[in-house]
Amino acid sequence: MHITDIILKKRSGEALTKEEIDFFIKGYVDGSIPDYQASALLMAIWFNGMNPQETTDLTLSMVASGDTVDLSGIDGIKVDKHSTGGVADTTTLVAAPLVAACGGRVAKMSGRGLGHTGGTLDKLESIPGLSIEQPMEIFQKLVNTIGLSVIGQTGNLVPADKKLYALRDVTVTVDNMSLIAGSIMSKKIASGADAIVLDVKTGSGAFMKTAEDSVELAKSMVEIGKLAGRATVALVTDMNQPLGNAVGNALEVQEAIEILRGEHPGDLKDVAFALSAWMLRLAGLADDEAAAMKMLTNALESGAALDALSRMIEAQGGDPKICEDTSKLPRAGKLISVKAERDGWISEMDNTEIGISAMLLGAGRQTKADVIDPAVGLWMKKRIGEQVAVGDELAVFHVNEEKNLDEALKRFKAAVKISGEKPDKLPLIYHVVE
Amino acid sequence: MHITDIILKKRSGEALTKEEIDFFIKGYVDGSIPDYQASALLMAIWFNGMNPQETTDLTLSMVASGDTVDLSGIDGIKVDKHSTGGVADTTTLVAAPLVAACGGRVAKMSGRGLGHTGGTLDKLESIPGLSIEQPMEIFQKLVNTIGLSVIGQTGNLVPADKKLYALRDVTVTVDNMSLIAGSIMSKKIASGADAIVLDVKTGSGAFMKTAEDSVELAKSMVEIGKLAGRATVALVTDMNQPLGNAVGNALEVQEAIEILRGEHPGDLKDVAFALSAWMLRLAGLADDEAAAMKMLTNALESGAALDALSRMIEAQGGDPKICEDTSKLPRAGKLISVKAERDGWISEMDNTEIGISAMLLGAGRQTKADVIDPAVGLWMKKRIGEQVAVGDELAVFHVNEEKNLDEALKRFKAAVKISGEKPDKLPLIYHVVE
Repeated sequence: MHITDIILKKRSGEALTKEEIDFFIKGYVDGSIPDYQASALLMAIWFNGMNPQETTDLTLSMVASGDTVDLSGIDGIKVDKHSTGGVADTTTLVAAPLVAACGGRVAKMSGRGLGHTGGTLDKLESIPGLSIEQPMEIFQKLVNTIGLSVIGQTGNLVPADKKLYALRDVTVTVDNMSLIAGSIMSKKIASGADAIVLDVKTGSGAFMKTAEDSVELAKSMVEIGKLAGRATVALVTDMNQPLGNAVGNALEVQEAIEILRGEHPGDLKDVAFALSAWMLRLAGLADDEAAAMKMLTNALESGAALDALSRMIEAQGGDPKICEDTSKLPRAGKLISVKAERDGWISEMDNTEIGISAMLLGAGRQTKADVIDPAVGLWMKKRIGEQVAVGDELAVFHVNEEKNLDEALKRFKAAVKISGEKPDKLPLIYHVVE
Repeated sequence: MHITDIILKKRSGEALTKEEIDFFIKGYVDGSIPDYQASALLMAIWFNGMNPQETTDLTLSMVASGDTVDLSGIDGIKVDKHSTGGVADTTTLVAAPLVAACGGRVAKMSGRGLGHTGGTLDKLESIPGLSIEQPMEIFQKLVNTIGLSVIGQTGNLVPADKKLYALRDVTVTVDNMSLIAGSIMSKKIASGADAIVLDVKTGSGAFMKTAEDSVELAKSMVEIGKLAGRATVALVTDMNQPLGNAVGNALEVQEAIEILRGEHPGDLKDVAFALSAWMLRLAGLADDEAAAMKMLTNALESGAALDALSRMIEAQGGDPKICEDTSKLPRAGKLISVKAERDGWISEMDNTEIGISAMLLGAGRQTKADVIDPAVGLWMKKRIGEQVAVGDELAVFHVNEEKNLDEALKRFKAAVKISGEKPDKLPLIYHVVE
């Protein structure tokens, strides 16, 4: 088999066989296929796509490139969730404790934020003392006793994805449905969960800007999950504005705690509940949505969900008192109010730009090497559809380092559009792919 | 400027600016742009193409990547020819002496053969003693005195093409019109000729299989030549069968000499005359085709053309006696007659396969490192449209090493189709792009 024949075949628009895909992934990981041939193939895939069978073959080939996590030490059905990434997207910190409090088993390996999107590990690390590096025995023990643990990826999981993603990143081949689906699902499958709930974001702050693309990605990933023997559901949810109000690590932890205390209704809570309900259903703990919602409401109102989060924080070395008093979280030195400069309705947000504003304040990373300031970020005060008058507060910036403050403010203001007409209401959940 | 922006732009189907193309070529040659980003861009170019302006910018950027040949030591208009490559395509050895004998100045830097195609340097080196490595002073002196010299490429001409071609070869991005045109024309322009006659082959033995593609390539190259200030004409000529009868290095020299002696009419002579006529016209030595043809016929019949070849051979260290007695050329040890196995008309040839048959006998190179046997090859006895009976001779194989003989015979026989119906006559010259 020759890699040039495989490139030619894909360039001609033909489907690759499982053997050809295996040959490529193995050869690329072991170095016998060089970067320049891999990038030519990736660009041909970008142009001609991959069908569902090819996408599944690619995913399983990537899974086979490294270790897989053995979660057999955990009793019951292990259920995982994954978001394709967004702004103020704190659902894991709400959903995982809720599901754990309902008897679910959430053994979650999370990731870090990059660019305009946040990452659960960074958020957790804003909790004083908490460590996301835990040995597998502790991880499994916590899931067995508390019902949840969130740690960083361990072991040599999916080295093919690490190598391919780094190449895609510098060859403009990231934004392909099959490559995205393969990258996400290979990591989920290798992480060992029995059931997977996917939150596919759509809109101005998501990688997929249109609902159609997001639904297509959702279908592709559900198909892969099914073929790989994992119960998989995907929700396509809105990312045309920050999902919660908080954008920034400690601020997002604070918001999650406020939700688990029952103090904070809104879109973030609603999406977290929708995801949690599916997690309970896939885990066999609830028969339908109504039953799941009832269990989740109980877990919230009884304080059991907040208690699960608190126990996990403590078990991973963090200070559980933040659950009672969020002022113990890191705080920025300066608060700056950003105000509306015209009357009207909030009609639209460039949500990627809002994420970048927070990143510029130090809440995120421009490159992987950047260091995050856990305290900084911004707190949204208005949502799309709300009416504002000149001088109304749109957001509060939480600032330490002021180096990029002007640019952050400028980009934020340009990102929030105020119109003379009331906009149509955005859907929150566009589609569910079962 | 970032290479990823350039890749994204081309991937989106937009035209690149001269500055972006320069940035790419400079960066690729100096190593600041790695192979894997160059190959992603090449594949995006393969899918989305380049417009005429981009193609010219690419060509001139490649010319600027290295040295250019200074032919100012040669009096008069220097005229060059170039073939896109074919089988039994010996036009240079016929046309260059003809044009020289008519007062033209042919300072030609030629190339070697690869795969199924032959190269003029390999053919010349089959002449005992001849060297294609000559200092620039000698080269220019020969062109001034005899009217022609053919040597190998000297100096650091178009390093961008060398590096890019090697990458295209292993990333399945060779067959793109703009990249081919840029590769050919950058070398022609850097070689310093004032006027260029291009012979764009079309058909089963050519890189371009259809006349439409060949005409498009021809137009693209003529456009580049014009924008670069070189008088350029392109002829699209047939390569659906070997152009001459001889396929193999010494055999092709023999056939060229026979043509210059006036002993060998046929397609090779006709194409060589057509190319030569344009060379004379672009050099300002003939006003129209009729005048050019008359001059060429005189040069042939008077023996002046053969004399010019003979003088060049002698001046470059070769034995000029081969022009009188071609049996002094290297000869293969064994002649094998290949016969028709059915009655009918020769209807079609897979000319690439015929070239590969000769290559397998040792007349060509599978890889650049292979060593050629100058004596071997094959001599065609029939052309498309001729009627044959079982047992009629189709070709004679000239063989030394018999290692690949069976495969060569098998491929040759499969390549020559005999049909029950007389085929339509093929055009010889499809199109002229002025």
